Amino acid sequence: MASTFGKLFRVSTFGESHCKGVGAIVDGCPSGMDLNESDIQTQLDRRRPGQSNVATERNEKDQVTIQSGTELGKTLGTPISLFVPNQDQRPGDYADMVDIPRPSHADYTYQMKYGIRASSGGGRSSARETIGRICGGAIAEKFLLTGPGVEIVAWVSSVADLDAKTPDLLTINRKKVDQNIIRCSDPDVAASMEKIIIQAKNEKDSVGGIVSCVCRNVPPGLGEPVFDKLEAMLARAMLSIPATKGFDIGSGFAGARMKGSNHNDPFVLKGDLLGTRTNFSGGIQGGISNGEPIVFRVAFKPPATIGLPQQTVDFNGNPAVLEAKGRHDPCVVARAVPIVESMAALVIADCLLQHRAGRYWN
Amino acid sequence: MASTFGKLFRVSTFGESHCKGVGAIVDGCPSGMDLNESDIQTQLDRRRPGQSNVATERNEKDQVTIQSGTELGKTLGTPISLFVPNQDQRPGDYADMVDIPRPSHADYTYQMKYGIRASSGGGRSSARETIGRICGGAIAEKFLLTGPGVEIVAWVSSVADLDAKTPDLLTINRKKVDQNIIRCSDPDVAASMEKIIIQAKNEKDSVGGIVSCVCRNVPPGLGEPVFDKLEAMLARAMLSIPATKGFDIGSGFAGARMKGSNHNDPFVLKGDLLGTRTNFSGGIQGGISNGEPIVFRVAFKPPATIGLPQQTVDFNGNPAVLEAKGRHDPCVVARAVPIVESMAALVIADCLLQHRAGRYWN
Amino acid sequence: MASTFGKLFRVSTFGESHCKGVGAIVDGCPSGMDLNESDIQTQLDRRRPGQSNVATERNEKDQVTIQSGTELGKTLGTPISLFVPNQDQRPGDYADMVDIPRPSHADYTYQMKYGIRASSGGGRSSARETIGRICGGAIAEKFLLTGPGVEIVAWVSSVADLDAKTPDLLTINRKKVDQNIIRCSDPDVAASMEKIIIQAKNEKDSVGGIVSCVCRNVPPGLGEPVFDKLEAMLARAMLSIPATKGFDIGSGFAGARMKGSNHNDPFVLKGDLLGTRTNFSGGIQGGISNGEPIVFRVAFKPPATIGLPQQTVDFNGNPAVLEAKGRHDPCVVARAVPIVESMAALVIADCLLQHRAGRYWN
Amino acid sequence: MASTFGKLFRVSTFGESHCKGVGAIVDGCPSGMDLNESDIQTQLDRRRPGQSNVATERNEKDQVTIQSGTELGKTLGTPISLFVPNQDQRPGDYADMVDIPRPSHADYTYQMKYGIRASSGGGRSSARETIGRICGGAIAEKFLLTGPGVEIVAWVSSVADLDAKTPDLLTINRKKVDQNIIRCSDPDVAASMEKIIIQAKNEKDSVGGIVSCVCRNVPPGLGEPVFDKLEAMLARAMLSIPATKGFDIGSGFAGARMKGSNHNDPFVLKGDLLGTRTNFSGGIQGGISNGEPIVFRVAFKPPATIGLPQQTVDFNGNPAVLEAKGRHDPCVVARAVPIVESMAALVIADCLLQHRAGRYWN
Repeated sequence: MASTFGKLFRVSTFGESHCKGVGAIVDGCPSGMDLNESDIQTQLDRRRPGQSNVATERNEKDQVTIQSGTELGKTLGTPISLFVPNQDQRPGDYADMVDIPRPSHADYTYQMKYGIRASSGGGRSSARETIGRICGGAIAEKFLLTGPGVEIVAWVSSVADLDAKTPDLLTINRKKVDQNIIRCSDPDVAASMEKIIIQAKNEKDSVGGIVSCVCRNVPPGLGEPVFDKLEAMLARAMLSIPATKGFDIGSGFAGARMKGSNHNDPFVLKGDLLGTRTNFSGGIQGGISNGEPIVFRVAFKPPATIGLPQQTVDFNGNPAVLEAKGRHDPCVVARAVPIVESMAALVIADCLLQHRAGRYWN
Repeated sequence: MASTFGKLFRVSTFGESHCKGVGAIVDGCPSGMDLNESDIQTQLDRRRPGQSNVATERNEKDQVTIQSGTELGKTLGTPISLFVPNQDQRPGDYADMVDIPRPSHADYTYQMKYGIRASSGGGRSSARETIGRICGGAIAEKFLLTGPGVEIVAWVSSVADLDAKTPDLLTINRKKVDQNIIRCSDPDVAASMEKIIIQAKNEKDSVGGIVSCVCRNVPPGLGEPVFDKLEAMLARAMLSIPATKGFDIGSGFAGARMKGSNHNDPFVLKGDLLGTRTNFSGGIQGGISNGEPIVFRVAFKPPATIGLPQQTVDFNGNPAVLEAKGRHDPCVVARAVPIVESMAALVIADCLLQHRAGRYWN
Repeated sequence: MASTFGKLFRVSTFGESHCKGVGAIVDGCPSGMDLNESDIQTQLDRRRPGQSNVATERNEKDQVTIQSGTELGKTLGTPISLFVPNQDQRPGDYADMVDIPRPSHADYTYQMKYGIRASSGGGRSSARETIGRICGGAIAEKFLLTGPGVEIVAWVSSVADLDAKTPDLLTINRKKVDQNIIRCSDPDVAASMEKIIIQAKNEKDSVGGIVSCVCRNVPPGLGEPVFDKLEAMLARAMLSIPATKGFDIGSGFAGARMKGSNHNDPFVLKGDLLGTRTNFSGGIQGGISNGEPIVFRVAFKPPATIGLPQQTVDFNGNPAVLEAKGRHDPCVVARAVPIVESMAALVIADCLLQHRAGRYWN
Repeated sequence: MASTFGKLFRVSTFGESHCKGVGAIVDGCPSGMDLNESDIQTQLDRRRPGQSNVATERNEKDQVTIQSGTELGKTLGTPISLFVPNQDQRPGDYADMVDIPRPSHADYTYQMKYGIRASSGGGRSSARETIGRICGGAIAEKFLLTGPGVEIVAWVSSVADLDAKTPDLLTINRKKVDQNIIRCSDPDVAASMEKIIIQAKNEKDSVGGIVSCVCRNVPPGLGEPVFDKLEAMLARAMLSIPATKGFDIGSGFAGARMKGSNHNDPFVLKGDLLGTRTNFSGGIQGGISNGEPIVFRVAFKPPATIGLPQQTVDFNGNPAVLEAKGRHDPCVVARAVPIVESMAALVIADCLLQHRAGRYWN
C-alpha cells in the first residue's frame, strides 16, 4: 500500500528489482506542457548503476518509455504512464538470503509485514524502486522550471567523516556538481571522498554520507499549514528514500544550539518583495516558502548489503554467517543526488498546485 | 487547507490564538474503547503555558470537553469532537506586529499566502494550534497503550550547547522525565539547562534545543512502503510541529559517518521473534517497524519572538525596529515533549490501523 | 471513519443526535471571503425540524456559532469550526429500541459494525448529522455565489405518486420554492402533497419523494476524469444523505429508453462559448461541466421510523413488535431540499478548486 | 487528475484510446493471494470489442500482462502493474472530429478543461479507459471471492423500452448471463433486445439500456458513515463509468413512491444472524451492509457517437454537419456488464479493508 505520493501532482510507482520492469503513473501534471522521454532520461542516467567505479556494477540501460498521457510531445492532462524494463537479472546472487535476513535490510520486516517477500534483490525495497521517483520527479521538475523557473540542485556534502565546503547556493548547478563522479560540490575533497569509497569497496564494506540540496526561485506562499508544512512534506519525501536516517533544513540541528537573536532572519527589501538578510530559516517560515532559497540536508547510512561476513541468525533464529554476493553500492550518495532532486520537485510541484487552488479570493 | 493528519486514524484541528477556542475532530478511533476527558487533560496540562518560570506566562487552564463520539465513557466509532476555549486574550500586546512582520515568524508568509492574517498572536501559526495535536495524540496513545501496549516517552536531550546523557531507553518514563521542569532525562544537567533558559529569558533572548523520543512495544510490521515508510511519516509529523528544524532516527546524522560493518544491526533471537543486537536502525528497517524500540530526535530552533530589539523592515519595506511585547517562551522544548509524544502516537496508531487492513491474507 | 467530504474544499462533520452538539470543520475555504453566522443560519433554518406540520415536532433552534477561521467577518484561510448545540434531548422516547433494531434503520448495522451504538435517537445515523453538511454547504455556496456566481436551487418534485411539473430551470429560485411548506416548485400540486403527508402522519405511516436540483452558472471545465467525474461526485454526495435510494442526472433513467439521435445535445453558439440546444446531458459531458445548467434528481425513501406496529425480531432474534414513539418526519423531502443544495455546493466548490489547481499551463 | 479509485484497495489507471497502451496499478491488494493473468483476462474478454454483431467491430485482443507485484503466482503486497497494449489504431477515422466536437461526447469539455485533447478516438474519455477498471476489478473480485466468498453478478435488465424479468437474485450467475450475447438474464426478451440493437446499428443510430447487479455474501458491517456510505461509494463508482446517467439501489426511484409500512424490511432470524424478510433496502442500511444481497441498477444512455448526420457547430461556432465514421457500439450495456461488476468489486474490497482496520477493539 501507499506507493502514491502527492495530493494533486501525484506519482504512483511500481516494480520490484527482478520483475518485468519498474515505472510510474504521473497524474495531475498540467496539460499543454512539452514533454518527451529525454526530459526524464537525463536524470535516470544520473541515477543509473554502473556509471563509475564507486557504484554498483549492475549494468542496466534503464531506458524509459512514455506509454500514455502525451501526444505530439505535449501533455494532455491525462495520466502519464512510464515504464523502464528490468534487464540484468541474476537471482542466483541472492540464494543465501532466502534463509538469512540481511542485517539492517528489509528482508525481515517485509516477511513480518506481508508473510511473503520477493525471493531476490530486496523486491520493493530495492534501489530500483527509485526509478519511479525519478520518472515522476523529472516531470515535476520540467513543470517547475518552465513555469515559475524553480531550480533544484543537490550535491554530496559529506562522505563518511569528510565534509565538503558549502558551495555558493545561488550559482551551484548540476554541471558543476557532475564534474566529479562523487557529485561533490567541492572539488578539493571529491578525490579524497572517492578514495574512501573505493577503499570501503575493496574492504567489502560500505560508508554513509550526506546529500545537500537547494531549491531556488520557489515562489513565496507554498506549503499548507498545519500538517502539510513545506518542510514537513520535504522531510517525509526525503525519509521515504531508501537508506536515509535524517533530514534538517536551514540551520537544522545546529540551529538547536543557537540563540534567537542570532538565529532570526531580519527582513530586508529585495526588489518588490521582502527577503531576509540571513537564511537560517532555510527558505520556509511557518511552513510556507518565503521566496528565499530552500536549503536542506539528508543523511544516508552506509548501505546494509556488504561483502564482509556478518554473524547473525537465520529466519528460524539459528546462528548464521552472511556474506553478500550480489552487486551493491559501497556508498549511495552520488546516485542519490538525482533522487533527492526528484523528491524535492515532487513536493514543490504538489504544493504549487495546491497553492494555485486555494489562493485567496481575488 | 491541510489541517488533517492521518489516513485511517485521523485528526482534524482548528483554532487560532485569539478566536473562541481550539480543538480537533478525531475520526477513525475504534469503537468500544474507554475514553473520558481526563485521558486527554493530563497531556494538555503538560503542554500548558504557565507551568513554570521557563515557559510563557500566558496562563490558560486549557480545559478540554468531549462534545461527541462517546457515550457512557466508551467510544462509539463516530467522530470524537474536542473543544478547548481560549480565555486569556490580550490582542493589544501584538499591536506593533500589525505593520512589522516578526523575523523568522510566520507573519510575512501567511500574508503572502492568504492575503490576510489574524491580527494578533500568530493566528494559526501560534503554539495554541498544538492543543489540537494533543487532543488527537492522547486518544491515539490510549488506543495504542490499551491495545498492543505501545509506550511513548519523549524528553529534552539538549538545550543550547548542553547535552543530556542518553537514558536507559527501556525504562525511561514520563514520571522520571517530569522530575524536573526542563523534562530532561538527565537530572545532572537539568539544573544547568534551567539556568541557560532563565538567562536567555532575562536577556530577552531565546534558546533552541533537542527533544528525543522512544516508542516501545511497537509491533513489527507497521509502516507502508514506499512513500509512507514509518520513518517518513514520523519525519513529516515532527517537522509539522512549529519551530522544528530537523529530524533523525536511530543512528541519524551520525550514522552518515559510519561504516556498514559497524552500522548494521545483527539479528539475534529474542523470545519467539528475531530482534537485533544493536539498534542503529532505530527500530525501523525498510520503512517497517522491526519490534525494537523506535528512537528519534527532533531539533527545535530558538523561538522567533524575542524581546530584544531587532532591526528589520515593515511590510512596505521601510526600516523598522521590533521589540516583541507579547508573552512568549524563551525555550520551547519542555512544553514540546507532550507534542512530540502526541505526533508519534498519531503516526503509529494510523500505521497500526493500516497494517490491520492490509495484513496478508489469512 | 470517513466523516470528511472533499479533497480541497473539505468539510469534516461530527455529532450524534443526543450528545453535546453537532457541527463541522470547513478546511480549504479561500481566505478573504466575507462570512458570518447568518450566511449559514438561513439554510439551517430551512433544515430545522418543527417548521411546519409536515415535519417532526422536535423543536430545536439550531443556532450556529463560528468558533474559528474568521476575523472581522472575513475568512482567514484557516479551518472554520462551526458548532450547533443539541438542546431538546428526550432519550426516554427511544427506550424500546435498545433491544429491538428498527426495521430499515441503522440500529442493526451500526451494532454489527461497531459492536456498540448510541443508546438513542439513531446516533450518527440521525438526521441531526445533516446539520454539519449544511454548515459546510452554506460556506461553499457563499464561495460559489460570490465568485463565479453559481446558483443552486433544489425543490420537491414528487411526493409518493404525485409528480410536480418541471419548473423553468433558468428562473426557479428559493423564494419561489419556499412559497409552500412542501417546497414544491409547482403550487398546483403542493396542496395535494401536503394532504398526502398529513394523512400518512395521521396513519402513523410515512411516504417517500423526490428532490430535484439545478445548478446554474457552473463554469465549463469542472470535474476530474476518470473516477472523479462531476456526476460521480454528485452521485456520491447525494447517496450519502440519509434515506436516499437513487440519483440520476439529465435524461437519467428515462435516457436509457432513448435513441442516440434524440438524446444527443447538438452544439449551438451562445455568446462567446458553445452551448447545447437541448440538455439531456444535464450539464455534464465526459464527467466535465459544459456550462449548461446541471440538473439532477434524488430519490428519498419513506422514513423508516413509523408509529405503526411492526412485526420484527429483537437483537437476539426473538419475535417482537415495535411501535416507534420518538418524534419523526412523515416525509423528509421538504427538509431535504437545503441538504441537497448543500451537498451540491460542496461538490462544485471542491471541483472548482481542483480545476483552478490543474488548469493547463498558462 | 483523479485517475485513482479507492482508499486502501486502490487502482490507478492510465491510457488513451490511441497511445501505446492502457492499464493500471493496483496498490493495497493483500499479499499471499494467488493471482495470474488469466484471473483478469476472463473479464477483459467479456469487455472486449468485436465479440458479436451488437458491439463495435474494433477488434483488439486486449491481452493483459502483469508487470510487477507477484512472484510465482502469489501477490507480494506490492503494487501490481498491469499493461494492455493498444493495437488497432486508425486515427484517420476521426479526422472530421478535430474541428467539430461530437454532440454529447467529451470533445468540447476536454478542450475547455485542458486546452488540448487527444486528436482522435476520445482520448481518455474513450471506452478503452475501462480496461484499467477491469484490471483492478478482477483482482478485487479474486480477493473477495477467495476471502469472504463475495459473488458479484451483473446483467442487462433493459434495452431501450424492453425490460427483462428480474432473475432469481440468489442463483443468477455469469454463466447464465452469458448464454446470450446481450447478457440479458431473461432469455425470453434477449432476442428482441438483440433485434432492437441491430436495427439501431443499421439505422446508424444507438440505444440506451440498464444494467442491474447483485452482490451476494457481502459481510455485514461494510461501508463507512457518513460520507462513505456503501451506497454512496457504489453510486460514485457507477456514475464514473462512461455513458451512465443514473444509479439506484434496492427499491430505488420506485421506493420514493412507497409508504414506510410497505417499504420497511422487517428483521427475521437467518441462521446465527439477523436478516430481513424483504429487501427494499438493497442490502444496505444506514450506509452499512446488512448481510442481505446488495442490489442496484445503472442507467446507460445511448452512445453519443452515431453515424447519422447531426446538425451542430464546430469549435468556432460555425454550423456543421457531423457523420461519425469511427467504429462504435450501437448499445454499450452488454459490454458494460463486466465493468459494473469490476467497479462493484473495487468498492466492496476497499470497504472490506477499511472495515478490517477500524473494527471495534478486540
